[in-house]
Amino acid sequence: MNHSINHTHDPSLRSWVESANHKGTDFPIQNLPFGVFRHRDTTISPRIGVAIGDRILDLFACQQIGLLQELPESLQAACIEPNLNPLMALGSWATSALRDRLSELLRLNGSPPPLEAKILIPMAEAELLLPASIGDYTDFYASIFHATNVGKLFRPENPLLPNYKYIPVGYHGRSSSIVASDTLIKRPQGQKKRPQESAPTFGLSKLLDYEVEVGFFVSSGNDLGQSIAIDQAEEHIFGLCLVNDWSARDIQAWEYQPLGPFLAKSFATTISPWIVTLEALAPFRCPVFARPQEDPTPLSYLASALNAQLGGIELTVELRLSSAQMRSQEIEPLRVSQASFEEMYWTIAQMLTHHTSNGCNLRPGDLLASGTVSGPKSGSQGSLLEITRRGSQPIELPTGEVRSFLEDGDEVILYGYCEQKGYVRIGFGECRGKLI
Amino acid sequence: MNHSINHTHDPSLRSWVESANHKGTDFPIQNLPFGVFRHRDTTISPRIGVAIGDRILDLFACQQIGLLQELPESLQAACIEPNLNPLMALGSWATSALRDRLSELLRLNGSPPPLEAKILIPMAEAELLLPASIGDYTDFYASIFHATNVGKLFRPENPLLPNYKYIPVGYHGRSSSIVASDTLIKRPQGQKKRPQESAPTFGLSKLLDYEVEVGFFVSSGNDLGQSIAIDQAEEHIFGLCLVNDWSARDIQAWEYQPLGPFLAKSFATTISPWIVTLEALAPFRCPVFARPQEDPTPLSYLASALNAQLGGIELTVELRLSSAQMRSQEIEPLRVSQASFEEMYWTIAQMLTHHTSNGCNLRPGDLLASGTVSGPKSGSQGSLLEITRRGSQPIELPTGEVRSFLEDGDEVILYGYCEQKGYVRIGFGECRGKLI
Repeated sequence: MNHSINHTHDPSLRSWVESANHKGTDFPIQNLPFGVFRHRDTTISPRIGVAIGDRILDLFACQQIGLLQELPESLQAACIEPNLNPLMALGSWATSALRDRLSELLRLNGSPPPLEAKILIPMAEAELLLPASIGDYTDFYASIFHATNVGKLFRPENPLLPNYKYIPVGYHGRSSSIVASDTLIKRPQGQKKRPQESAPTFGLSKLLDYEVEVGFFVSSGNDLGQSIAIDQAEEHIFGLCLVNDWSARDIQAWEYQPLGPFLAKSFATTISPWIVTLEALAPFRCPVFARPQEDPTPLSYLASALNAQLGGIELTVELRLSSAQMRSQEIEPLRVSQASFEEMYWTIAQMLTHHTSNGCNLRPGDLLASGTVSGPKSGSQGSLLEITRRGSQPIELPTGEVRSFLEDGDEVILYGYCEQKGYVRIGFGECRGKLI
Repeated sequence: MNHSINHTHDPSLRSWVESANHKGTDFPIQNLPFGVFRHRDTTISPRIGVAIGDRILDLFACQQIGLLQELPESLQAACIEPNLNPLMALGSWATSALRDRLSELLRLNGSPPPLEAKILIPMAEAELLLPASIGDYTDFYASIFHATNVGKLFRPENPLLPNYKYIPVGYHGRSSSIVASDTLIKRPQGQKKRPQESAPTFGLSKLLDYEVEVGFFVSSGNDLGQSIAIDQAEEHIFGLCLVNDWSARDIQAWEYQPLGPFLAKSFATTISPWIVTLEALAPFRCPVFARPQEDPTPLSYLASALNAQLGGIELTVELRLSSAQMRSQEIEPLRVSQASFEEMYWTIAQMLTHHTSNGCNLRPGDLLASGTVSGPKSGSQGSLLEITRRGSQPIELPTGEVRSFLEDGDEVILYGYCEQKGYVRIGFGECRGKLI
């Protein structure tokens, strides 16, 4: 793992891109998250970019102009590809070297360089695409608060299954239906059966929900049959994003046994466009979640001193909701929940190591997600299922409307950010989806 | 659906490739399955080929020589790609037109053409690769006999869950670890816990098993949000192959609740190299499995007259096993089971239609598999878990060795074939994997 804090984190650094120096921006020069964009009004192919304030630094343009010529050729070649997979495949040295160079390029040394117009585009003029071609997508269940909340609804006496405290429980998700932020989400149809009904019916889901999750992308992968040890796990992680794991609870309840969630999830999963690198997150690392004394210690393949001390991430995630009525009255989205990623029972390194413990191969661009991030306190639950207790305690919106589950026209927005005294705030941007 | 029988099925057709006319060959001129191969001793890139007797027809070479020039350019272009995805993406008209032309090319009209050496290679000199880049892999559970057998072991009073007769139950599998036939399989490690143990331990799986399945590849896909109706489903299916869904039963038992199988399966899945097209299978279509009268009829989105009459496939699958000791004594592999794909509770069209019923998008090259093919009779169970009743009734090998589950050095070989009076036998080749 590389948790060392280097000059790119220096809080005194400022950029010649003015908006990157504004207090509260998600994308200061200390962040430099990677994404893929396309100019809205041109037919130019997708390009790799880095978010800086309200602008995107165009890495294709930087390479063409020769601004990256001091970097190894393999790394320059990866910068002109239409997605991040080749850059991810190079491994952490490449991301680190590239961030270093970009930090230098964007740093304020007097006046902006004359090339500004050629290498920067306003984010407002760009369409933000999926950052990578995602081979496989795996979803975990790493918040013990979420697992307990959901378990209580289904098995009041026995909310947590016996394997939970030993295994970072996960399952394979659907990669084809992962969509970029701002993609409209169509309410799915499916089979549903209420307890009082004798047979299921087919129709639109009525219990549509979101799940607030944190995702992480694989950088260099591993060969089939080779496991990745816990202290090497983060060398295989490129960075983090936000994930909205849309869930149709009525479809899920009827279909999920015995093989797990399937069509209740596979109609859409929205991810945020910018991948915040582990290097940018170094100042915000923290100890793993403190297990209660009576809990078992993790088996040795999932434990290390480094993971115990620095496996966690002080990352706050928030969910905001706006209804069509709220937007027509120009009412700001309502913050429905806020939780901390520090409170996850399992770390990203533990999830990745467990995933490869049977020899399963991960490939550059594979996406792993944490499962719903919920905390112990009221207001920290990352799904409506939990907040409304399966719809029995609806929430009220500023318009007086109530929500047990999502209604058509509702827009769901996830935010994520890291704040720590002595360091500049690092944000994740938005992960946005509207239901139609 | 296209179940029409055309001239390519004519049993009187013979090929100038002599071995294709041998009784019992898997690959007569009536079959023409597609795959991807590489010359064993050269550095030439992978190419698309068609199996014919003990030879492979090299489609790249055919195109270069001009033998495909009467075909549309898009189809010719797909024939020189390194995998089948572009051909699949073109849809069923393309496969049909290409088979037509290849049937013509390979047909016996006097003596072999002078180009023979340029377009044919001996299968023995080729390495057979994965036929497609598989985006997503979905595994179903479509044999009611398998579901009941397995359910009985875990829930003796209630073997079949209430959703089984309404839903073609399925789950997302891992695509990265799908391997070609003949790939050596490494015994996985994982967490296991026996009932009498108070905590799990981590180590090599001791209950390693196979599952005999039939897979089918998606040809043209569907857009996110669009469903595929039951009578259109087969237009989106390119063809079938054999699948060995290796399963670590001890890992599975401990991990699978509540989100389904994960590391118990993701260490490897072996598929056979040749994809037998639906067109080649047309003479072997049959009615869907006859549900007992007391069973519910499928919901309307999963039902049609055509599916009822011709949704099934008369395909026999077999599993043979050889131990290292058997091979050293030159004893032939033992046939452990034989079952018929006709006896599946759900058809391939029902599985595909259900998969897209929530709007989930399928992409060309996606793989769907049936789940273990088991029949009602003794000797028709497609996994050792079922045959040995979770190891309690081991089978005996010709050497006197016994097997509850697989031992290192065991080789597992799946076969599949269709036989029907008045038609030439169509075979699937082998799906082979040895445990190390």
